Amino acid sequence: VHRGIGDDAAVVRPGPGGTLLLTTDLLAEGVHFCRDTARPEDIGFKAAVANLSDIAAMGGTPQFVMVSLAIPSGWTAAGIGRLYKGLMEACRPHGVELVGGDTSASRQGLFISVTLTGYADRTRVLTRSTARAGHFIYVTGTLGDSLAGLGLLQNGGGAGLTRRQERYLVDRHRRPVARIQAGRLLARRRLASAAIDLSDGLSGDLSHLCAQSGVGAEILADALPLSPACRAYAAARALDPDSLALQGGEDYELLFTVPPGRRDQVDRLAERAGLSWSPIGVIRPPSFGLRLRLRDGTLRGWRITSYQHFRNWSSPAREAACSR
Amino acid sequence: VHRGIGDDAAVVRPGPGGTLLLTTDLLAEGVHFCRDTARPEDIGFKAAVANLSDIAAMGGTPQFVMVSLAIPSGWTAAGIGRLYKGLMEACRPHGVELVGGDTSASRQGLFISVTLTGYADRTRVLTRSTARAGHFIYVTGTLGDSLAGLGLLQNGGGAGLTRRQERYLVDRHRRPVARIQAGRLLARRRLASAAIDLSDGLSGDLSHLCAQSGVGAEILADALPLSPACRAYAAARALDPDSLALQGGEDYELLFTVPPGRRDQVDRLAERAGLSWSPIGVIRPPSFGLRLRLRDGTLRGWRITSYQHFRNWSSPAREAACSR
Repeated sequence: VHRGIGDDAAVVRPGPGGTLLLTTDLLAEGVHFCRDTARPEDIGFKAAVANLSDIAAMGGTPQFVMVSLAIPSGWTAAGIGRLYKGLMEACRPHGVELVGGDTSASRQGLFISVTLTGYADRTRVLTRSTARAGHFIYVTGTLGDSLAGLGLLQNGGGAGLTRRQERYLVDRHRRPVARIQAGRLLARRRLASAAIDLSDGLSGDLSHLCAQSGVGAEILADALPLSPACRAYAAARALDPDSLALQGGEDYELLFTVPPGRRDQVDRLAERAGLSWSPIGVIRPPSFGLRLRLRDGTLRGWRITSYQHFRNWSSPAREAACSR
Repeated sequence: VHRGIGDDAAVVRPGPGGTLLLTTDLLAEGVHFCRDTARPEDIGFKAAVANLSDIAAMGGTPQFVMVSLAIPSGWTAAGIGRLYKGLMEACRPHGVELVGGDTSASRQGLFISVTLTGYADRTRVLTRSTARAGHFIYVTGTLGDSLAGLGLLQNGGGAGLTRRQERYLVDRHRRPVARIQAGRLLARRRLASAAIDLSDGLSGDLSHLCAQSGVGAEILADALPLSPACRAYAAARALDPDSLALQGGEDYELLFTVPPGRRDQVDRLAERAGLSWSPIGVIRPPSFGLRLRLRDGTLRGWRITSYQHFRNWSSPAREAACSR
């Protein structure tokens, strides 16, 4: 950083690799988060992760961040400080530096717009448009945890979950982890043919990747990775765990595709590098569409829904409370 | 642009010069603009210019733009299309490409966050912190026109201005011009010692530059560049033209400082390159403070006010109307 905050623009040295990655995400109160369930530091943390996760999905290394805030009355300087603290807690482990931003009043509701730059080797960038029929579909980590954590924040705990499981799920909602290392390894070793991050849920984001690649996909219900805590949550609330995995947003895991010839390498790399990812299906020709293979062998299509962030579908009362 | 809109992040080639410039500005409805006086295309145009002007003030060349919008109910797709059209009208003459962004609902009010990248030769970047006592202070163009144009939009025309003058002032408010060419020439030829763009008005922005450079400044009232239209507006409304020039925001002119040895070159360059700039004062030691030399030779300090964008001070009724 030659010149950071305080001038008309930040002056920085671009990263190596000849390529600049640029991404930006806007989070709006009452749309992406609700102050009932998100503390200031959680809002900052998640605004950063939404962007870090985009760079991870390109196989890149994040570098510089800028933050613009529109702040309604009722926020204190301490609250804004906590928001920045959460933001930097997400950024710092990746060496990302805050180099600028803007602040404004807001007539109603907090708005946070984060822009992140990164870099990558131009020939190894992971895009959404290069998945091909026959490639295996992988996801990192487990799915549905964030939505389960939100459910706990909105409606409290319940029978069937241990305290530790509750804490795990709430933490997965409040402090999701961007899969920077996984994306970078997959890109550098040319193991993945395409990638996208799961911010809006598997069903929606996989459909984006398939649309851009011009392919279909078959997902194996039995292979959907669910944490024991998420399974316990689904059981306690009589929810379908597959739906949690398919439709739950804000997990910020990576979905990537792997050509058949690279599958062994991908499986071995996970063990060696201490990374967690697992195959969940196969890319199909476009005529196949998007379908879920159930445990009895039958196939069914799924409804592609755009994830409604803080609005847990099981909680219309809370939603109404936050929509005031 | 290797990869623009549609993936997790844009993939672009950084510009030459070894330096990346990054700037971002957030405009909020009811704070920076009011729909009474700003059409959708004007909002987009001005959001772009606010950022272009920041790159101009660094002596840089703008390159890539990202736009995030939070859109309240009541906006149509056509309205959003007009906003983007205005934004690109400001960007296109400079070869700036739109490479990404984000959109969201807004519970109330439109928010537009624009991020712009640019590049410059690292050793020739213009900063705010390098003005020295004895350097001459210059501004491009004329000052106060934008505020006068806003006054006309809020309160209608009046005796003493021609139609053409009215159109000129309104256009200066709606379609300010970022001084990219001026900034770049001053930086490349090492003619300016410091620069800042005038978004919040001369008095406020000069005070920022002086604070960062650790200097004072003397401005000559007689040298403040006012357009004939702005003078006519001030006369018709019985306003002090010096105050219009000192406190009017959103002119997006450049203020820059010039070492004495470079002054002749600067004056000649304006003629040769068809650029308009003029000297308005001199940088003084810090103990001098910020003072205006009146026509009778006396000095007075000035109140540093933060410019209240759409809130023309002469129009409390309109302000109330927009604050509903």
